[in-house]
Amino acid sequence: MKITRVTVTPIAFKDAPLLNASGIHEPYALRSVIEVETDNGHFGLGESYGDAPALAVMDKVKTQMIGLDPFNLNGLRAIVKATVAGMSPANNSGAELAPGSHASKAVSNAYSAFEVALLDVQARYLNVPLVDLLGGAVRTEIPFSAYLFFKYAQHIDSPYKPDAWGEALSEEQIVAQARRMIDENGFQSIKLKAGALEPEHEVACIKALKKAFPNTPLRIDPNANWSLETAVRMAELLGDDLQYYEDPTPGLEGMAELRRRTGLPLATNMVVTDFDEFRRSVALNSVQIVLADHHYWGGLRDTQMLSLMCDTFGLGVSMHSNSHLGISLMAMSHVAAAVPNLSYACDTHYPWQEADEEVIKGGKLPIRNGCVSITRAPGLGVELDRDQLAKLHELYLGCGIRSRDDVRQMRKYKPDWKTVKPRF
Amino acid sequence: MKITRVTVTPIAFKDAPLLNASGIHEPYALRSVIEVETDNGHFGLGESYGDAPALAVMDKVKTQMIGLDPFNLNGLRAIVKATVAGMSPANNSGAELAPGSHASKAVSNAYSAFEVALLDVQARYLNVPLVDLLGGAVRTEIPFSAYLFFKYAQHIDSPYKPDAWGEALSEEQIVAQARRMIDENGFQSIKLKAGALEPEHEVACIKALKKAFPNTPLRIDPNANWSLETAVRMAELLGDDLQYYEDPTPGLEGMAELRRRTGLPLATNMVVTDFDEFRRSVALNSVQIVLADHHYWGGLRDTQMLSLMCDTFGLGVSMHSNSHLGISLMAMSHVAAAVPNLSYACDTHYPWQEADEEVIKGGKLPIRNGCVSITRAPGLGVELDRDQLAKLHELYLGCGIRSRDDVRQMRKYKPDWKTVKPRF
Repeated sequence: MKITRVTVTPIAFKDAPLLNASGIHEPYALRSVIEVETDNGHFGLGESYGDAPALAVMDKVKTQMIGLDPFNLNGLRAIVKATVAGMSPANNSGAELAPGSHASKAVSNAYSAFEVALLDVQARYLNVPLVDLLGGAVRTEIPFSAYLFFKYAQHIDSPYKPDAWGEALSEEQIVAQARRMIDENGFQSIKLKAGALEPEHEVACIKALKKAFPNTPLRIDPNANWSLETAVRMAELLGDDLQYYEDPTPGLEGMAELRRRTGLPLATNMVVTDFDEFRRSVALNSVQIVLADHHYWGGLRDTQMLSLMCDTFGLGVSMHSNSHLGISLMAMSHVAAAVPNLSYACDTHYPWQEADEEVIKGGKLPIRNGCVSITRAPGLGVELDRDQLAKLHELYLGCGIRSRDDVRQMRKYKPDWKTVKPRF
Repeated sequence: MKITRVTVTPIAFKDAPLLNASGIHEPYALRSVIEVETDNGHFGLGESYGDAPALAVMDKVKTQMIGLDPFNLNGLRAIVKATVAGMSPANNSGAELAPGSHASKAVSNAYSAFEVALLDVQARYLNVPLVDLLGGAVRTEIPFSAYLFFKYAQHIDSPYKPDAWGEALSEEQIVAQARRMIDENGFQSIKLKAGALEPEHEVACIKALKKAFPNTPLRIDPNANWSLETAVRMAELLGDDLQYYEDPTPGLEGMAELRRRTGLPLATNMVVTDFDEFRRSVALNSVQIVLADHHYWGGLRDTQMLSLMCDTFGLGVSMHSNSHLGISLMAMSHVAAAVPNLSYACDTHYPWQEADEEVIKGGKLPIRNGCVSITRAPGLGVELDRDQLAKLHELYLGCGIRSRDDVRQMRKYKPDWKTVKPRF
């Protein structure tokens, strides 16, 4: 079996005005849809980043994949490494919150994008669900958590009709957001994206959530926007309200010190984003839970390897997410299904995506009881809706965004907005 | 696809009177050949330990594999875990030199035995070489090293005609053994199994090998039979003659201290034999090279994971071997082919096996230029010779050995022989 065609289609879809440590989401999120075809009529799908630097690498890699056996993942990795070595590293100011867009992640990021598509080809060729290539499912219902954001009611300059979620700045509004998201999806744990408003207010929102959902595990993620002192002070206020404390403060050393001072379980998708950082985190005891993300950890197989490393070193495993569509959701779900030590419900932005902006046939995948189900359908179990792909590609062409920049977007609201790390 | 039949056939084959830290090899080595058949006519092969405790676990596991999908490796692991949990741990005095026979390795050992056979089924079903399921070959020629032993000319009580290698106790005899093994197989590195004779004599043999093969990397493996002080003293004598220093002294702490005192690269198959020991070794900086062995590390996939961990923590990777036949040799070769960071030639006892005692069709596999070749043949690329299997099973039934015990065997030569750790 040989690869005869690889297509990478950049797409855009509406993204709500969600606040975070850098600033605010732009009106459109970028992604890419990867299609791989073979000489014997097989087909595979992937979804990855849609920022210009990521696309530049993928565009160079894809031409060299022609003729490759879809089983030859080591061959793919060699192609990606050689390609990236021949390119000058790109700068991507929006990469902080999307670690896969870091220039340092160019290899694992592009490798992952195509690895998923090749595994999908393999599994469809075999007529088995992709999870079978990862050792088989230890679970078929993959738990996700409600992912709450502080947000404005609509984007500045009203690029399109306001989303259905409304403003969420106050404690009451955050509780209402949680209630709606849980009512619609059955989530059994809650994450609040923080680092956007005053820390005391964000903690007050956790307290309000605790009161409203006393038995639901809670997490807060200030995206390293709190100083060590602030993170310690907030930890004192939070007491034992949290299931884990995600990236409150920057750096492996900062997290290690925070751990020493609070004893709280610390999670990260910011300080442990590759195997070298994993090694350093182990040495420092920086974090206790790693949020895996196959998009930048080097694909589904390397995510399994990361999970075994977490097991070896006594760390918990959960999953990070950026804005994404159903192909990524199923890739996350298939690997999560094969990870015995997945110890926490995974993150997903999926509920924030509009119902009419899914690229897979049948529209958005259901989340029931907080879980995504994987079936026995071949490969990832999803098919591409080409009309939707064309529509979202048109949105990409027209949206004017080529690299995520939440700082630039926030300057439209607050012209003197600056990058400050940490801000609080 | 469902498994309909699993067969585990214990076999024995002649083993030369090779000296080691425990004593001396018995006249027969034990192994097992695993066959898996499926409802759609597919077939897979494996080879593992043949000691009674290993067989007891495999016999219980195999009945529960009926109906399992051969892709469901996580399902296999669950079956093995449940089976072992329901058994009382076996004691195996010969396990020290064959870590897979440790009672603590019962799960990974049995899992591995069947994992290889299931991967072989998968690959044959797909009509691809097994290495393709491991990401594809980064090399097709797998380097092995000449594995020298001190030995007697024949076994006590002459159970069969003496082997063709003759006695090897002196420097000249060891050099002659090396020359013959290299002439026949083209090996480009040399390992001397030590811990059997006086350390100074063993070091003198390394010096003689260095003189005879000045450009060939050398290793010595005293199997933890040297005290820390002896290991330090021998290190001073050895100077920079070694490529690496394998398990000279016992324990993670001992190896760490040896490293501090000598700075030599230390390799092991004794103190890092599972992921928990890996973690402890990292914390102590005990070893710099891990000798992987899929038979006790949990199969080919976990050996890949171990290799990535070694890469993460800056450790080298090579491979350990016990007495084995061609199925194991090909399993080792397929995983070695898929490990990018295989940094040293692998160990193998294969040259010590008699030409008429191979269980695969076509007889013993060739080693050329020190390498085993993997081909594009499906699965492991070898077929079972049922006449040979029957013959070696007869040998098993008649040989009287049920668990390896090199101490007991040495007592036949030296009635007052005792287990002393370390002996020197």
